Formats: sequence, structure tokens, C-alpha cells
Amino acid sequence: MKATIGLIGLAVMGENLVLNLESKGFSVAVYNRSTEKVDAFVNGRAKGKQIVGTHSLKELVDTLQSPRKVMMMVKAGSAVDDTIEALLPLLDKGDIIIDGGNSNYEDSERRVAYVESKGLLYIGTGVSGGEEGALKGPSIMPGGSEAAWEQVKPLLQGISAHVDGVPCCDWIGKGGAGHFVKMVHNGIEYGDMQLIGEVYDLMRRLAGLGNEEMHQVFAQWNEGDLDSYLIEITKDILAYKEEDGSYLLDNILDTAGQKGTGKWTGISALHAGVPLTLIVESVFARSVSSQKQERVEASKVFPPQTIKPLADPKAFVQALGSALYVAKIISYAQGFSLIKTVGESNGWDLNLASIALLWRGGCIIRSAFLDKISQAFLANGELKNLILDPYFAKILQTNHQSLREVVAQAALNGIPTPSLSAALSWFDSYRTENLPANLLQAQRDYFGAHTYERVDRNRGEFFHTNWTGRGGDTASTTYSI
Amino acid sequence: MKATIGLIGLAVMGENLVLNLESKGFSVAVYNRSTEKVDAFVNGRAKGKQIVGTHSLKELVDTLQSPRKVMMMVKAGSAVDDTIEALLPLLDKGDIIIDGGNSNYEDSERRVAYVESKGLLYIGTGVSGGEEGALKGPSIMPGGSEAAWEQVKPLLQGISAHVDGVPCCDWIGKGGAGHFVKMVHNGIEYGDMQLIGEVYDLMRRLAGLGNEEMHQVFAQWNEGDLDSYLIEITKDILAYKEEDGSYLLDNILDTAGQKGTGKWTGISALHAGVPLTLIVESVFARSVSSQKQERVEASKVFPPQTIKPLADPKAFVQALGSALYVAKIISYAQGFSLIKTVGESNGWDLNLASIALLWRGGCIIRSAFLDKISQAFLANGELKNLILDPYFAKILQTNHQSLREVVAQAALNGIPTPSLSAALSWFDSYRTENLPANLLQAQRDYFGAHTYERVDRNRGEFFHTNWTGRGGDTASTTYSI
Repeated sequence: MKATIGLIGLAVMGENLVLNLESKGFSVAVYNRSTEKVDAFVNGRAKGKQIVGTHSLKELVDTLQSPRKVMMMVKAGSAVDDTIEALLPLLDKGDIIIDGGNSNYEDSERRVAYVESKGLLYIGTGVSGGEEGALKGPSIMPGGSEAAWEQVKPLLQGISAHVDGVPCCDWIGKGGAGHFVKMVHNGIEYGDMQLIGEVYDLMRRLAGLGNEEMHQVFAQWNEGDLDSYLIEITKDILAYKEEDGSYLLDNILDTAGQKGTGKWTGISALHAGVPLTLIVESVFARSVSSQKQERVEASKVFPPQTIKPLADPKAFVQALGSALYVAKIISYAQGFSLIKTVGESNGWDLNLASIALLWRGGCIIRSAFLDKISQAFLANGELKNLILDPYFAKILQTNHQSLREVVAQAALNGIPTPSLSAALSWFDSYRTENLPANLLQAQRDYFGAHTYERVDRNRGEFFHTNWTGRGGDTASTTYSI
Repeated sequence: MKATIGLIGLAVMGENLVLNLESKGFSVAVYNRSTEKVDAFVNGRAKGKQIVGTHSLKELVDTLQSPRKVMMMVKAGSAVDDTIEALLPLLDKGDIIIDGGNSNYEDSERRVAYVESKGLLYIGTGVSGGEEGALKGPSIMPGGSEAAWEQVKPLLQGISAHVDGVPCCDWIGKGGAGHFVKMVHNGIEYGDMQLIGEVYDLMRRLAGLGNEEMHQVFAQWNEGDLDSYLIEITKDILAYKEEDGSYLLDNILDTAGQKGTGKWTGISALHAGVPLTLIVESVFARSVSSQKQERVEASKVFPPQTIKPLADPKAFVQALGSALYVAKIISYAQGFSLIKTVGESNGWDLNLASIALLWRGGCIIRSAFLDKISQAFLANGELKNLILDPYFAKILQTNHQSLREVVAQAALNGIPTPSLSAALSWFDSYRTENLPANLLQAQRDYFGAHTYERVDRNRGEFFHTNWTGRGGDTASTTYSI
């Protein structure tokens, strides 16, 4: 009997996806380049299950039902291209290659076209949820060859998380759309984590709370508007003790790693001209954290601020909760703007309401308020920005004062809030009818003849002033060869 | 008699560079794709000068002394490649093609290798200073084929600005080094302009100053530590009146344009993992400014904050000056970190002290304090970050409180300060021995088995905790095919 699907790459995500597939009744053939991993898996966690170990790609492919479905869970980058090249001669027309790793969406865009040109089908799919999600039901974001969707749908929707009976897996769009949406998901994850980190830092250093008290605050937050996986695990982490009774959290070094998807999200936003300020600050915050040695040096040159005790620490912790919620809404508003803009420019025809639903379960950023985001985009398909939706506008109107207080206190007390501050600055920019960019345009015209528009004339009419009386009248718009 | 150099592309920068070259005694042949521009120039601004108009690239090339030097001042992108392709069959081995436009440094890296492979030499050079700089002496940052430097040195140093007798033009390094440094220069320019814009906004909206008062403040600042071209032109702009007596600045629309070099600087920083927070916020601020219609809509949903009158507006304006200086130092510290990091990873062997000197004159960011930056890198070749230099450390120690007050007041009063806030958050992150990234690492290990380091163990030892008791013990570092 042949297996339903083949999986290549037995690291933690790959292993768990295999076990998940098998538990839903699908037989799986597995392969790993270091074949001892195959044997260890088959004789270990996979023992007694409908999981077949293979020791070569040929053996893997020969073990599969036709049309074959081969899923790669390998390191993003050249390993994916190498695996595709190795698979192509072994597969037949109509077979489906699936990339479930964290690939760059531009690579997936290219690979879909390439594999289709060989007569096969290709799916680049985001899989989020970490090791536990992979095992019990991740959020899955597939895109690529639309003709493959009906064939893999039962498998992918079968193993995905479900919320209210709805699978957290649906077709995203053609080309690299699946990996693009997964990338933005990861960027949002960077933002959520950084925001929680900043709030934790303010709680411990400014409000003076201990781990047990913070554990309780997060437990309480998890019952309200902030209800989410990341708040929940933060609550758990704060309470986790080592064998000697010390808090594990206090023994962990403050140097954050990153795998690149946050960075890519930022680059995509810069290319698209979409202000994704909060997430980019989160990415850079990880970079600063990794400069541990320099920070230790700098902390001697610039000793910490003396903390001014808060008049009402309890009220401040409450304000922190509101500030976190406001900043989180802003982060998602920025993220969905990016999805909208890039989706439109690539002609992917993305469904924002549906994308929000996919993230309700299985993935790292799953949270209660994604339902509300979905409803906002469902109610108004032309919604320009999430914060203009009446539900979210109301929350911001009621709570933005808390974000102001938190940012101001942090600034005065020397506690860094790169992402909370970025959220506030973006909000205050976006809601300002007249920004100081008139000065910027005047400067650009002064030194570079870049021209400007006027408040008393139509858009699209450009003017140049000879500010000094010395420059010429040649505007730089005549720049041409 | 043949011309010393040929120039292609007669927009404002090209025209002015030609007039500059000619005024220094170099004869110039010119060409423009729309040849009526050639005739208009030769019969206009170039009349009676040693400037020869040509109507084809062949005619241009035939008019030049050997080895030929042909400078392109054309739109960055495919126009440069097209021009190179058109020139190659017309030129001889050893001839030099110079790109003086705002090319992406990665394109220049590629073009240097390509043109050298054809036996010719290629220079990609940044030219900064806008139309007036081009005419009277710009800052010039050449990189590429080192063998070409001695031949073009008299021309480029001849037309560049000079400060204290030193030309603001020197060899940067091989490959795309010249355009890379020019790109970061432009990024820094974005930051400087955004910072001035934010300070202007706070002065008018929070401190309630009029244009004439602000003109005076900037005039005063230009006599002190902030002495710089951009402060000087801001002073001029604030006083500039239209024929009807109204301030031109107030009639300019607040939608900023951008040509891409700020964006590229941000992308380069994300790739390099260098926190360039202030400049990226400046780039995004231009994007928000261009969303005029959305902002008008949002300003109705979120009406402006009621400004709380300042207790002492005069003291606040003084604090604004200190805050601007502190933030500017931080921006340059971030920018030079990027140059250092990317220079090292490309093996360009960049001289940071020399680069700071090139920017003292001719270019948009010229300012008094670049001398001090040069001295800092000269005094300590191993300096990890500019703010650790004793001179700059002292300034920050004395003045960072002003930046705190400004950011706090802006936050409370709803005036956006994306770049001032980013400066403060980065400073407070960089000087913090223990950031909240321990929580972030705990979260990553909790959901993704990404492992963490410990404060009580050596760097490079990684640990994984089975936080829930449910996940496996497979760490994601085993991820492999």
C-alpha cells in the first residue's frame, strides 16, 4: 500500500507534522538527508504508526500514491532549490511539491513559475504554530498553483487547527501569496512579542512588580481583550521555576535571535512604501539585544536613570494593559495595510477578512480579537485602514491616553519602548491633517529643485521656487537622458 | 582640440556639473538624448564657454581625449545600463565610464565587475549638494575601479567643495563603496530633515511660535552646535514670503516625495542587522505624509488632542535645541555603524574618519560637527559606536534629559515625533545592560524550541526547556535536511 503524502526533513516541525498527518488517518512516507534521523524517528516517536521510513528521495517518491504529494520541511534558501532539483527528475507531470518551510515569498513566486514550467504543481505554504502547533493543529497559509489546491485541501485542512468548526487553513492566492501572508504573520509576531517585552520591562523596572505579581497580571489580561496565546505563555513563563526554586526567566540571557522573516517583512514594507514602523522597530530591537557586549560597555558610560517612583503603580499597570491593546491594534493595522498594498500590486486578490480568520487558531499570534478584525474587513471591503473601522476606532478613542502616559513615563525614566513609541508616533501622524512635511518639501525644493505642491492649488500641479535668487530655474523633474 | 571629459544627461545636476568643470579649466563635451536640450544649453548657459555640444554618443566619444572619461548623469536604473551598453562598443580599453547619479550601490558593484570584464574602468560616484552644490562644489564619493582614480582625481577633486583647503572628495573603496556611502549620506539626510520637521512642528503647535520667531530660533541655532546647511536653509525658508506677503512655507502641501535612497538605506540596515531606527522612521514618515487623503479622514475620526499650554515655552524651545542635537548625534552614530558593518562584510576597508571629512562641505548634510566625528574615529580606530567616544558621550550625558522632556511632552500632546522617539528608544536600549529580551527568548523556546543562552553559563551554550511538559525534547537547531 502506498502512502498518501511524503515529507522531507525531520527536524521538530517536520516530525510533528508527520505525526499530525498520521493521527488524522493519512499514511506518510518520510525522508531525511541524514538517514539515521529517519531510523531514529521510525523506531521512536513513529513506532507502530502508518509512517514509512525511506533512505533516498527515489525510495520516498516510489512509495507515494499518484499524483504524488511531496512536502518539504527543510531550511529556507538553497536547500529548497536543491531539493526541488533532486525531486523533478523523479516525479511525473501533475505531481505536487509543497514547501512548508519559512521561505521568502519572492523565492516561492519564482519556484511556482519554475515548477509549473516543468508540468508539475507547486505550493508554497506558511505553517505557523511552532512545534506544538505542528503536532496538534497549526495555522496553514497555502498559495501557488491553484490547480493543486483541491488535491491537498483535505490533508492541509485536516491537520490544521479549527476554531468554531472552521479550519485555520484556506487558499490564499497564486504565486508567493501564501508565504507572503505567513511572512507578515511572523512580522506581526515580532511586534506582539516586542510589545509584551516592553510592557514586562516597565512592569518590573518602573512599577516594581515581581515575577509572581506579573504572572497574575498576565493571567488577568488573558481573560479580557488581550486574550491570546502569547499573553498566555508569558503568564506561564513568568511562573516557571527551576529545580533550585529560582525563576528560569531571570536566568535567561537577553540576546534575542531571529530567523529573518521579521527582517523580510520590514524590507517588503520599505519597498511598498507602507509605514510598518512598529514591526521594524521590533526587528531592530532584536539586533540591539544581540549587541550584549556593547550594551554592557555603554551602560558604564551612561549609568541607568534614577527611577522616579510612580504615584500609583496599580493605575500604571492598568494603563500598561490599555497601552498594550492600543499598540497591538496599531500593529495589526499596519500589518494589514502591508498585506492589502502588496496583494494589490501583485494582483493576488487577497481576502483580508479570511486571512484574519486563519490566524485565530494554531498559530503564535492567535487571539480573540482576530474575529473582530475579520468582521471589520467583512463589513467594509474598502476599509482604508483598520483603525478607521468603528469598533477599533472606539477602542483607540477610549484608550490612546494610556499609551501616551506609558510612553511619556518610559521616556522620562530611561526605559526603552521602541515599539510602543513607534505605535504612538504613527497614530499621531496618521491622524494629523497637517504634518510638518511642508517644510520638508520646501527644503527639497530649496536644495534640489524637487518641486512642491500647494495647499491653494490642485494636486498634481508642481511648483519650483528659486529660493536664493542664485540657483537656476531648471527643475529636477526635467532630469532625463 | 579634444575635450577633457564628456557628460551625458543635461538635467539640472548635469548642467551644473558641466559649468563647474568648465569653470575649473576643464573642457567638456556634452550629450543628451533629447538633443534640443543640448542646443538650448550650448546656446544658453554654456554660451562662450569651453563646452561642446554633441548630437550622438559616437560624436561625444570622438570628441574626447584618450583615455576617455565619460560621466553619466542619468536617471538611476535601467537608463544607466542602457547607456553603458551603448557606450561600450564606442570606447577603447582603458577608457573610464563614470556614473555620477544616485545608483543603487549593488548595481554599481555589478557594473564595476561588468565593465572591467570588458577591459574598461568604471567609477560609481556619489555626488551630493543638489543643484547649487553641483555648480559651486559638491561632496563627491567615488568608488569602483581603483586604477581609474589617479586619472579622474584632478577633475573630481578640482570641482568638489573644499573645507580648510581639503577637497570634499577622496577615494572611498572598490566595487559599490562610493554609491553605498552616498546612499547612507542620503539616509542621514532623511533623518536630519525629519528631525528638523518634528522640532518645527513642536515649536509651532506646542510652543506656539510664529514663522518669524522660528526663523530667529533657527538663526540662533545656526551659530552654535547645530551649525549646518539644513538649519541654515530652514531659517531662510521660514522667512520667505510670497508676493502677497504670505509665508510660502504655509502654502506648501505637506506630502513629501522621495527618490528611493532613504528606503535603500533602511533595507541595507535590515539586511546587515544594524539598528538604523531613526532613519527608517524618517523614511516611513514620508510615506505617511503622502497619505494625505487618509490622514484628513482619520483626523475627523480622531480629532486633535487639546494642547496643554507649556509652563515655560522659552525653556521648551531651548530643550528642543538640545534634543535635536542629541538625536542628530544618535542618527549619525547609527549611520556610521551601518557604514562600518557593511564595509567590513564587503571587505571595502573603509576609512570612517575620512568619510566624515568628505561631508563637511558641498553636500546637504554639511555641518560643523562632522569635524568632531572625524576626530572621534581618528582617535580610536576600534571605536564600537560614536556615542562611546568621550566627546560625544559627554554631550549626551549633559543633554539627554532634554530629549526625554521633548518626547514626553509630544506624546502627551499628540504631536508625532517618530524620529525623536526612535532616537531616545535606541539610546535607552543601547545603554541598558539587561533588556527584556530574556522574555523574548523564553517565548521563542516555549513555542518553537529555539533554545536560549543563560546568564550563569558561557556564551554559545544553548538550552531548551520543555516548558509545558507536553512538547518533545527535539530542539529546532536539529532542523536539517
